[in-house]
Amino acid sequence: MSTIEATAAKITDQPIVEQLIEHTNAEMEKVNELLLSRVDSHVEMVPEIANYLISAGGKRLRPMLTVAAAMMFEPRDNQHVSYAAAVEFMHTATLLHDDVVDESDKRRGQLAPRKIWGNSASVLVGDFLLGQAFMMMVEAGNLDALGILSRSAAIIAEGEVFQLSKAKDLTTKVDDYFEVIKAKTAALFEAATEVGAMAGGASEADRTALKKYGAELGIAFQLVDDVLDYGGLSGTIGKNVGDDLREGKMTLPILHALQNTNDVDAQFIRENLGDPEANEQTVARVVAIMKESGALKVTLDRAYEHANLAKAALAPLAARNGAHILIEIADYCVERAA
Amino acid sequence: MSTIEATAAKITDQPIVEQLIEHTNAEMEKVNELLLSRVDSHVEMVPEIANYLISAGGKRLRPMLTVAAAMMFEPRDNQHVSYAAAVEFMHTATLLHDDVVDESDKRRGQLAPRKIWGNSASVLVGDFLLGQAFMMMVEAGNLDALGILSRSAAIIAEGEVFQLSKAKDLTTKVDDYFEVIKAKTAALFEAATEVGAMAGGASEADRTALKKYGAELGIAFQLVDDVLDYGGLSGTIGKNVGDDLREGKMTLPILHALQNTNDVDAQFIRENLGDPEANEQTVARVVAIMKESGALKVTLDRAYEHANLAKAALAPLAARNGAHILIEIADYCVERAA
Repeated sequence: MSTIEATAAKITDQPIVEQLIEHTNAEMEKVNELLLSRVDSHVEMVPEIANYLISAGGKRLRPMLTVAAAMMFEPRDNQHVSYAAAVEFMHTATLLHDDVVDESDKRRGQLAPRKIWGNSASVLVGDFLLGQAFMMMVEAGNLDALGILSRSAAIIAEGEVFQLSKAKDLTTKVDDYFEVIKAKTAALFEAATEVGAMAGGASEADRTALKKYGAELGIAFQLVDDVLDYGGLSGTIGKNVGDDLREGKMTLPILHALQNTNDVDAQFIRENLGDPEANEQTVARVVAIMKESGALKVTLDRAYEHANLAKAALAPLAARNGAHILIEIADYCVERAA
Repeated sequence: MSTIEATAAKITDQPIVEQLIEHTNAEMEKVNELLLSRVDSHVEMVPEIANYLISAGGKRLRPMLTVAAAMMFEPRDNQHVSYAAAVEFMHTATLLHDDVVDESDKRRGQLAPRKIWGNSASVLVGDFLLGQAFMMMVEAGNLDALGILSRSAAIIAEGEVFQLSKAKDLTTKVDDYFEVIKAKTAALFEAATEVGAMAGGASEADRTALKKYGAELGIAFQLVDDVLDYGGLSGTIGKNVGDDLREGKMTLPILHALQNTNDVDAQFIRENLGDPEANEQTVARVVAIMKESGALKVTLDRAYEHANLAKAALAPLAARNGAHILIEIADYCVERAA
C-alpha cells in the first residue's frame, strides 16, 4: 500500500465528524480567532460569559457547515469566515436566551451561564453577541447574506415564542411541531449553509441546493435531539433525560405517544407534562410508554427521512470538494440517537 | 392679525413636543403603519406583546428624531421610514429585555409585559423585534446605516452589562456612570439622528452634526431620567420613585450624594442601595439627602450642559426645515425634570 493510499484509508476510517473537523480546520482557526477578538470588551462579564460558552466544547457544527459549504466552491476575501463567526454568535446568543427561557441548569455539560452570572447577564450578553454578529455581517459587505441571517434571527425567535405558547397545549398538532423545529433549529442550519454557498460564489442552483441541505439537516438534527431528550432509541435514563417533559414541550415523541397508547398511559403523560418536579421514576415510565407506542422509533424514522432529503439535495454536487463529508454528516446527525 | 400670522402664532404657542409631533406627523403615520405590519404573526403572543408596548403611548421620541433629522434634508424612497421603524423596534426590544433584567413591574404607566406574558415571552419577542429591525434595515439597502445601527445594538447591550456589573459597586466612578449612559441610552439617540441624516442625503459634515446632536441629547435625556427616578428636582415622592435605589444603580445622584454628604447619611444610602424592599420612607430620606447635598441639582446641571452641546451642534443648520424644533427639544428634554 503506497503512502497516499494509506493516508486515504486512514482518512476514510475516521469518524465522519472528525473528517469534517479536519477538512475545515484551517478555516475554523480563522473563525475562532475572529470569535475571540469579537468578544473582547473591558466589561469583564462579556468575554467571561461568551468564552465560557464558546470554549465549552460545543461542536461548532453550524459554523463548520458554513465553512464546508463555502469550500465546495471558491471562497474569497474570508467572507465565509465572517459568516461562520456570525452564525456561531447567533447560535450562542440563542443558547444564552434559551437557558433563561427554559430555566436550564446545564449547558454543554457544565453549569448554564445563568446559574453562574444570572439571567440578566445571560439576556444582555446574548444581545451583545447578536449585535456583534450583525456588525461582522455588515463588514463582510453583502446585503443578501445579511438579509438571510437577519430573517433567520426573526424566524428563530418567532418559532421559540410559538413553542412557548404551545407548552402543555394538548391540542398541539404534528404540523405545529414541525413548524416549531423548522423555525427554532432548521432556520439557522439553512442560513448557515446558504450564506456559506454565497461566500463561495456558488451559482443560484447550487446555493438553493445547499440551502435545502441545511434546512433538511436542521429538521433531522432537532428530531434527533427530541429523541435524545428521552434517552435515545434505547431509552436509557440518565441525567437531564425528560427535561422536555418537565418543560411541557410538545415534541413528536410526546405527540405520538399520546395518540398511540391506552387511556391510562395517555392520562399519565398528561398529568406529568410540564411538571418541573417530575422525578426519574416518572420519566422512566413515560419513556417506557414511548418505547411501547413506537414514539421514539417513529420520530427517528422521520429524522432519517429528512436526513435523506438533505443528502439528496447535495447529490448533484457530490463530486465537489468535501461534499461527501457533508453528505455523510447527515447520517451521523441521526445515528447519534440510534 | 392675518390668518397666516395667527397660524404661526398658534404653532409657536404650542409646547415644543406638540410641534415635533405635528412636524413629523405625516411621516410618522407611515412609520406606524410599517411597525404594525412588521409585528403581524400568526404566533399570537408576538403582535399581542409588541402592540401592547407600541400602542401604550410611548412618546416615540427616537423615531421622530430620525424622521425630523431626515426632513432637514431631502429624504427619498422612504428610507427614513424604514430607519425610524427599525430604531423604534430596537428601542422596544431593549425595553422588553430591560424589564426582565430590572424585574420591573411597570412600563409606560401600565403593567410591564413580563408581568402579563412572563419573562420568557419578553426575552423572545424582544429578539423577534431585533431581527425584524435588521430585516427592515436590510430592505432599505444601505450598508453604512446598517453598520451604525448594528454597532449601536452591541454598544447598548455592552453598556447594560457594564451597568449590571457596577450595581451596588461603591467604587463606581463618575466616568463609569457616563460610560454607561452613553452606551445604554445615547448610542441609540446618536444612531437615530445619524441614520436620519443619511436617509435625507445629508453631507458628511451635516451628518456628523446630527450624530453629535443625538449623542448629546441622549446623555442629557438619561441624566434627566436619573433625576426623575428620585422625583425630579422637586424630589416629589410618588410611585416608582426610588427604583434605581432599589436596583442598586450607581447613577449620578447617588454618586454625588455619597461624595457630598456626612458619614451618617452616606452610610444610610450605602445600607439601602440595592435593597429591593426599600420603602417609601427610606426613599424619602435618600431623596432628602440628595436635595441637601445638591445631587439632583448637579445632575440636572450636567443635563443642561449636554443639552446645550446638542443645540450647539445644530446651530450651523438652524435655518433648515424643522431645525428649530430639534434645537428646542433639547431644552424640553431637560425641563421635564425641573
